[in-house]
Amino acid sequence: MDFTVQLQAYRNRVERALRQHLPEADAPPGRLHAAMRYSLEAGGKRLRPVLLMAAADLFGAADSAADAAAVAIECVHTYSLIHDDLPCMDNDDLRRGRPTAHKQFDEATALLAGDALLTHAFRKLSDYSREPAVVAGLLSELGRAAGSEQLIGGQMEDLLAEKKSGVSADELRSIHLKKTAAMISASLAMGGIVAHAGNEAIERLRTLGKHLGLAFQITDDVLDATADTATLGKTAGKDARADKTTYVKLFGLDASREMACTETDAALAVLAGLPGDKSFLTSLVRQMAARTN
Amino acid sequence: MDFTVQLQAYRNRVERALRQHLPEADAPPGRLHAAMRYSLEAGGKRLRPVLLMAAADLFGAADSAADAAAVAIECVHTYSLIHDDLPCMDNDDLRRGRPTAHKQFDEATALLAGDALLTHAFRKLSDYSREPAVVAGLLSELGRAAGSEQLIGGQMEDLLAEKKSGVSADELRSIHLKKTAAMISASLAMGGIVAHAGNEAIERLRTLGKHLGLAFQITDDVLDATADTATLGKTAGKDARADKTTYVKLFGLDASREMACTETDAALAVLAGLPGDKSFLTSLVRQMAARTN
Repeated sequence: MDFTVQLQAYRNRVERALRQHLPEADAPPGRLHAAMRYSLEAGGKRLRPVLLMAAADLFGAADSAADAAAVAIECVHTYSLIHDDLPCMDNDDLRRGRPTAHKQFDEATALLAGDALLTHAFRKLSDYSREPAVVAGLLSELGRAAGSEQLIGGQMEDLLAEKKSGVSADELRSIHLKKTAAMISASLAMGGIVAHAGNEAIERLRTLGKHLGLAFQITDDVLDATADTATLGKTAGKDARADKTTYVKLFGLDASREMACTETDAALAVLAGLPGDKSFLTSLVRQMAARTN
Repeated sequence: MDFTVQLQAYRNRVERALRQHLPEADAPPGRLHAAMRYSLEAGGKRLRPVLLMAAADLFGAADSAADAAAVAIECVHTYSLIHDDLPCMDNDDLRRGRPTAHKQFDEATALLAGDALLTHAFRKLSDYSREPAVVAGLLSELGRAAGSEQLIGGQMEDLLAEKKSGVSADELRSIHLKKTAAMISASLAMGGIVAHAGNEAIERLRTLGKHLGLAFQITDDVLDATADTATLGKTAGKDARADKTTYVKLFGLDASREMACTETDAALAVLAGLPGDKSFLTSLVRQMAARTN
């Protein structure tokens, strides 16, 4: 199947799964559920759930077996964006081309909607209770990636880095591994888990995610420095105005692009060692490296 | 065993379990883990983990089988307090006699520490992976109680109620069932789940928790109106100053005390129908009704 068609098919499946697996927007309390859906339905690339579904398909997962896990990973991603946008964090007004949750609703509602999406993500994993070993595996994977030593730890390190002068390349890499790569790794690994891929394959999926996550984040830094707000769908040039340490600031544009390529190549090499039809994931990795938003 | 001695033994077990099951305070990023431990180590009554452990013991749980679940429930409770204290929510400076997390650290750190405690709670459930059915049961129970239709939903309804004039008794009861009783119910039910109590017994534990939770919250309203800040360990008289709808405001002090007694009696009646040695839980229910902080 053509890559673009297949990508759209995965995205459609993500949208269907989100509609199916979230509480209705008018379920009481309506304001809370409306805020949860507002942020989730803002769209975005759906990269993490698409990666999860594609990894599951690589190992022959049954139809829709990956859906609840895909919803879980997108809920965690969306919660992290809502909280990251809050005034006490990045204080951002625009996300995916729309007002951020605390602008559209208010701070307290945004805080609680984020909390609720995080909780909903974990709750969704109990959908696999007929395969309790899958529940335990998913819980361990998501709990680690979203926890204080990875996703949240990376956000904390990012905040601390903003306050000090002189962030080293190693520190920047640590932030990106935790803040971005860990959840991309977990997406791929969770796809392997729902498809009963073996431990060795799951570990390879994690490694693939690590390289892909670093490539993704370095590209983000490059786009923040080069794209305009309309194309990005979020405020562009923010890093430079905030004098934030990025790959571009540390190494310049050309070297940053080079490093993104190196990580992309490493991801493709790991992918080549995995079984099944890898054409979709190969194209997706290449497309992510060439993206403009 | 004497009730006071046994209560202290349970609390000691909670403190040991917390030390054992949390990331070290100096694990990187240190500031995040320090904030998580600061709030958890502020103490408090440890009511929910004690209830969980005591319910597990009622059904003959193996030594320490309840510990990780008890840590999980206390992590969720503590996260909800941290977020509830934030400026965009209750904006409280004092909690358990000490500065709240955002006062001791800063808002962003408090936000992330709350997020991390919530995530850690779910992650801890995968400690039961040798009994995957227990993992699935705990996950479902905690996910529901902590989610948008219970704990977080109750906080949202509480916020919305503050903004409107005239909250009905039914609305107030709904807020308390969601905001307080759901997590107390879940504590008891999770104790039953780790001890492999049957579904019928687990449902009775939930009902016990519902009555206990309502009694607890009505007593809280009474204490806010009658106790002083030093005794409470948190700001007293806040409800009246905020003109918040409470049982005391709706029904007066005497009728509120009467309603707390009715719920306590209902809790004792459900407890009487459970198996095992119920002397500790019976004393605990009675003590909770007579507490002064």
